[in-house]
Amino acid sequence: MPSYSLEYPKEPFSTVKRLSNRADYALETIHGIINSCQILHVSYNVPDSPFPVIIPMLGQMGSFARPSADLGDVLELYLHGYVSTRMANASRKDSPEGGLPVCVAASHLDGLVLALTPFHHSCNYRSAVVFGRATVVEDPAEKVWATQLITDGVLAGRWDNSRVPPTRAEMASTAVLRVTIASGSAKVRTGGPGDDREDEEDAALVGRTWTGVVPVYQTLGEPVASGYNKVERVPKYMADYIRDTNEESKSYAVEAVHKVMVKKKTDD
Amino acid sequence: MPSYSLEYPKEPFSTVKRLSNRADYALETIHGIINSCQILHVSYNVPDSPFPVIIPMLGQMGSFARPSADLGDVLELYLHGYVSTRMANASRKDSPEGGLPVCVAASHLDGLVLALTPFHHSCNYRSAVVFGRATVVEDPAEKVWATQLITDGVLAGRWDNSRVPPTRAEMASTAVLRVTIASGSAKVRTGGPGDDREDEEDAALVGRTWTGVVPVYQTLGEPVASGYNKVERVPKYMADYIRDTNEESKSYAVEAVHKVMVKKKTDD
Repeated sequence: MPSYSLEYPKEPFSTVKRLSNRADYALETIHGIINSCQILHVSYNVPDSPFPVIIPMLGQMGSFARPSADLGDVLELYLHGYVSTRMANASRKDSPEGGLPVCVAASHLDGLVLALTPFHHSCNYRSAVVFGRATVVEDPAEKVWATQLITDGVLAGRWDNSRVPPTRAEMASTAVLRVTIASGSAKVRTGGPGDDREDEEDAALVGRTWTGVVPVYQTLGEPVASGYNKVERVPKYMADYIRDTNEESKSYAVEAVHKVMVKKKTDD
Repeated sequence: MPSYSLEYPKEPFSTVKRLSNRADYALETIHGIINSCQILHVSYNVPDSPFPVIIPMLGQMGSFARPSADLGDVLELYLHGYVSTRMANASRKDSPEGGLPVCVAASHLDGLVLALTPFHHSCNYRSAVVFGRATVVEDPAEKVWATQLITDGVLAGRWDNSRVPPTRAEMASTAVLRVTIASGSAKVRTGGPGDDREDEEDAALVGRTWTGVVPVYQTLGEPVASGYNKVERVPKYMADYIRDTNEESKSYAVEAVHKVMVKKKTDD
């Protein structure tokens, strides 16, 4: 546990240039945004195409060497999802850099910020990106550990409440990528709208235009049992997770409206 | 309005290789996923860095030449958000290809699919990617039109209910990118979990392990008025939009559980 707040280095490709008062390089902020985001967007380049590719994947930050590490510690990102043969080969390649260069983004939309004029409309959000090199996890122990990390990231406690350990065949057809992080940054907006003084002083405009924030949050709904489910009641660990996650998401979005940022008027 | 369903060409970089029964190349499907997704992830390459960059942006598909075009027609993608000087320069560059190569992803998480074993855990989702070349919109009429398209994409009817048209200064400091689409694909999963027969026949395992789907959907919360708001009641167009959007998101996630896909058992 570091006694001070670790930050990622500001590389040319990772430095937030516009609205830099919204930027944050603290590992704890960046890792927290990633670990609470259920879909991560992973970008990489493929040979013979001018376009980078983005695929959605599940993932969690963690440390196999020190599983008790905090969010603010140096961590790796473990990704699970579709790993193409091409992607796997590039990640396995014994290049001097070691691994496939990727950018991974995690974004939470927290609110629609409605101002008097479209120009000052904005969103409350928490977004993070990390840059790093992805390699395929080969060590069986690390792979099982990462699979548990990611499974519990989707629904806390699910690993211990399902049929584990995975069979050898299951693990053989599961691909996990480990991203060693080179840098990263986060950008966060909170608060209400900000308009130009002349619009705010236009009584007719203010009198007819609702301004404020519509909070936005993800909701986990009522569980729907499968055709072969035999467990009558939704287990407590699931009900607790659903309730806690929903309360947390909603209260963050609502509280973000009143969280004041140090910001310039023109920053919307 | 085409009398048949248009599809994007299957380019090497855009063809879904794994679980290809979940893939869809129809313009209508892809454009629908993008236009209902409030945060788009845009990826592009920067010079002198091995890593692609991802930034979250707002965007909508539309046709300036034919504003009444359907979702299934050939459309362009208009993006608003932070356009760096570097990005703008690359987009303006008079290259033979014309524009900055980008990949844009839109993803909706619709459910957590909980199986007997972690290996068969999955997610219900709708995800789309498009590949294309981004250029800065210079024509003032197109730029205002695109700004309205994107504003109304965030909250339908908001443009007409705020102070418009934007001033010349506001438009001068607004950047809009137009992406001409080269190709794209969508991937959709619906349904419940699927387990291996030997696990399903393990009565003790089935007896203790809840299986099914936790629907996931985005919720628009109770609007919070700004400090300078003078409109007492939330206007009808806003209340209607919030109610309709919430109903649609929730009912899609719940109905997706029962929507059967043609799929192989090993596809989770």
